[in-house]
Amino acid sequence: MLPTCVDTTLETRERYSHDWTEDLRFLPDAVAIPQSEKELQSVLSHAYSRDIPIVPAGGRTGLSGGMLPVKSGWVVSLEKLNRILHLDTDNLIAVVEAGVITQHLQEAAEAVGLFYPPDPSSRGSCTIGGNIAHNAGGVRAVKYGTTRNYVLGLSGFLPDGRPLRTGSYTLKNSTGYNLTQLLVGSEGTLAVISQAVLRLLPRPLYVHTLLLGFPDAVSAVAAVSAILRKGILPAAVEFMEREAVLFGEAYLGEVLYPGARDFGGLLLIEVDGNFPEALEAECAIIEETGWAHGATRSWYAQTAGERERLWRLRRCLGIAVKSSGPYKEEDTVVPRTVLPELLAYVKQLGEEYGFRSVCYGHVGDGNLHINILREGLSERSWREEVPAAVEKLFRFVIARGGALSGEHGIGWVQRRYMPLQFQPHELELMRALKRTFDPKGLLNPQKIFPDA
Amino acid sequence: MLPTCVDTTLETRERYSHDWTEDLRFLPDAVAIPQSEKELQSVLSHAYSRDIPIVPAGGRTGLSGGMLPVKSGWVVSLEKLNRILHLDTDNLIAVVEAGVITQHLQEAAEAVGLFYPPDPSSRGSCTIGGNIAHNAGGVRAVKYGTTRNYVLGLSGFLPDGRPLRTGSYTLKNSTGYNLTQLLVGSEGTLAVISQAVLRLLPRPLYVHTLLLGFPDAVSAVAAVSAILRKGILPAAVEFMEREAVLFGEAYLGEVLYPGARDFGGLLLIEVDGNFPEALEAECAIIEETGWAHGATRSWYAQTAGERERLWRLRRCLGIAVKSSGPYKEEDTVVPRTVLPELLAYVKQLGEEYGFRSVCYGHVGDGNLHINILREGLSERSWREEVPAAVEKLFRFVIARGGALSGEHGIGWVQRRYMPLQFQPHELELMRALKRTFDPKGLLNPQKIFPDA
Repeated sequence: MLPTCVDTTLETRERYSHDWTEDLRFLPDAVAIPQSEKELQSVLSHAYSRDIPIVPAGGRTGLSGGMLPVKSGWVVSLEKLNRILHLDTDNLIAVVEAGVITQHLQEAAEAVGLFYPPDPSSRGSCTIGGNIAHNAGGVRAVKYGTTRNYVLGLSGFLPDGRPLRTGSYTLKNSTGYNLTQLLVGSEGTLAVISQAVLRLLPRPLYVHTLLLGFPDAVSAVAAVSAILRKGILPAAVEFMEREAVLFGEAYLGEVLYPGARDFGGLLLIEVDGNFPEALEAECAIIEETGWAHGATRSWYAQTAGERERLWRLRRCLGIAVKSSGPYKEEDTVVPRTVLPELLAYVKQLGEEYGFRSVCYGHVGDGNLHINILREGLSERSWREEVPAAVEKLFRFVIARGGALSGEHGIGWVQRRYMPLQFQPHELELMRALKRTFDPKGLLNPQKIFPDA
Repeated sequence: MLPTCVDTTLETRERYSHDWTEDLRFLPDAVAIPQSEKELQSVLSHAYSRDIPIVPAGGRTGLSGGMLPVKSGWVVSLEKLNRILHLDTDNLIAVVEAGVITQHLQEAAEAVGLFYPPDPSSRGSCTIGGNIAHNAGGVRAVKYGTTRNYVLGLSGFLPDGRPLRTGSYTLKNSTGYNLTQLLVGSEGTLAVISQAVLRLLPRPLYVHTLLLGFPDAVSAVAAVSAILRKGILPAAVEFMEREAVLFGEAYLGEVLYPGARDFGGLLLIEVDGNFPEALEAECAIIEETGWAHGATRSWYAQTAGERERLWRLRRCLGIAVKSSGPYKEEDTVVPRTVLPELLAYVKQLGEEYGFRSVCYGHVGDGNLHINILREGLSERSWREEVPAAVEKLFRFVIARGGALSGEHGIGWVQRRYMPLQFQPHELELMRALKRTFDPKGLLNPQKIFPDA
């Protein structure tokens, strides 16, 4: 008999057949939506004993197809495990269930004067569990690091339903192999995470936001290293090229920041702290460095409203591009100094292969999101030539010390490129780790590895 | 034929028969000191094909016996792989060999205006490779995190000599399983690390240091949570009880901070940043909070000389206790709010089991180093009763969300306590990971696991 939380109606199966990755859809055989850890465990035991593949799902906002049920089986959604169990203002620690929406945790922390820094653009829909599975980054990683830096411990289940607890309720821990950090970024292929112990910070009292306009996109990203050499660690250093601004304005149906579209490239820079005078001084240094590197206009977001408008523009870019039609998003990450060369190379590849690209991203971390638009490309071009261009792009990135993914993960759509980054025996080592956790290969099958 | 870098003289074998852990000694069959990665690789291949156990060694300053060659075999010292290969001031990244002394990297970074925050007390002797193997912490972890937070990528070798590269030359990476973070803290049991790619930060221009004296030790640690609730993230929050100060002064043969010994407990607190006015304001808040929680005296370290004296006192405590005679050091870590109860419990156990303890540590992280002195204890008491007391201590720690080790690792001397922290199937999962990397069990055998 099926566990009661398993839904096999076509409507539900269709709803869980996709995430935010391109236009990909794979219909699961069923969708389990457990209401408790106990129910989750019984779903896993049931499925394991029947060799049913399990795909854990959070907010289904992933961009690498990590939750696509490509081998059918069951999607197990953690969405109802959505309680913030504990907000410890003395130890600056939160305990949350995996299905908590990231923004809910941010707001709950803020309400008690605390701060949960990881801040993916999809924060209103994505979940802590999904963020952990992909080691999500977001706009504050340049100063505050990625999700990984905030995970102190995890509770979850091995594929057969046995419970697994990792880490501790402490800021430090050197006790045995760090399974916590192995699970972060493992994309739901090793265990199903049900709870997390997260580190919080004191909330900075002030945030100052600056927008710098550059005549061309390459100058904008070239200024990033110069700014970060000034001894300041900004809380965000975001880049948008003109095309991105145009897509954002078209999607929102309004011009959020008048004049922004007149520039080839924009840098959105934020500093935070408890002393406004210090932030003003930092902004002055950043602005001056920007001017010295070719910026021709700068704006301060003086009010909370202006700041919010600026971020609304930046945050909508992913969905703006997505809603414009078929595209592929590459989540390249390189050393910051390589950004100008990377951006130029992308445009050169576009000319060579006949595609248009829209670029933006977390350039303080060297993380450039490259959106390749399908537009008028033929089926053959889209299915064969563009992937060849992407392979060239990744070869370029890896040769310069970069990686296939900065924060979206490998999932389903990038796995074919893994042999560019790793030697065969290194991939085999990762596969062996997978088998150790999941000997039957039932947990999120065919993800990460090129031919798994 | 033996590789040329292998030394079998008794003198050398004796020199590598111990680290800083208690008075433990195990004679290796030989000591290999490779001069290059190539030589390291050939040592490993040679040993692997002959089933010779290998124990990687750094500065041999470990406190959990992680480098003790308990099954003989070869100690492989990384000390001659000691080059800083690259200090990248544009991307704020360093590439170093494993044998680089931590303080050398700190100084090299500082010379170019950069900052490598991990700062173990043994920084003048310990190595980056050893720090990575144990996920070393130190005095700045409360703000800056442990070694783990600075490791972006690793190069090294599997036990059979095959090369392994993990991570990338970037600040973010979500590409495959994070083998980098699995290797950090694995205590030389999975692979031999030869190089690391490390993240650096801009160097804060100013550091302010404050010492608060409390009538008793428990009040001092009770004030820690209150200070950290004030929205300030100090760069260090260190604790010394009176006994620790007395040991330090006796070891150094001078009174570094007159009056310090008149207090039951001291907190040494440091804030850093680029704006002195902000630091002054933070120190005032910290001081006021200290007074409100029972502090009866406070000192500012006004000059670099005063600051240096204060730190010299704090940093010598480990060696001061060690040089006083046989002792056991427990590296307990708990949520900060548990510190007063933990400290009281340690003293209660001391009364019950007849031992004296000296406590100090990184209390901002909840990391309390508990040194149990042998002094007049009988052999039976030392070998049987004290371990029973330590087991009680760890049960107390774990029941409150803590862990066996905050930063020293499990190594040889704490492995018997691992079943207190982990379920049998969790330990078996870790053992399976070990077998995946090291099927013959030749790399640092008998470490971490209770009966491995």
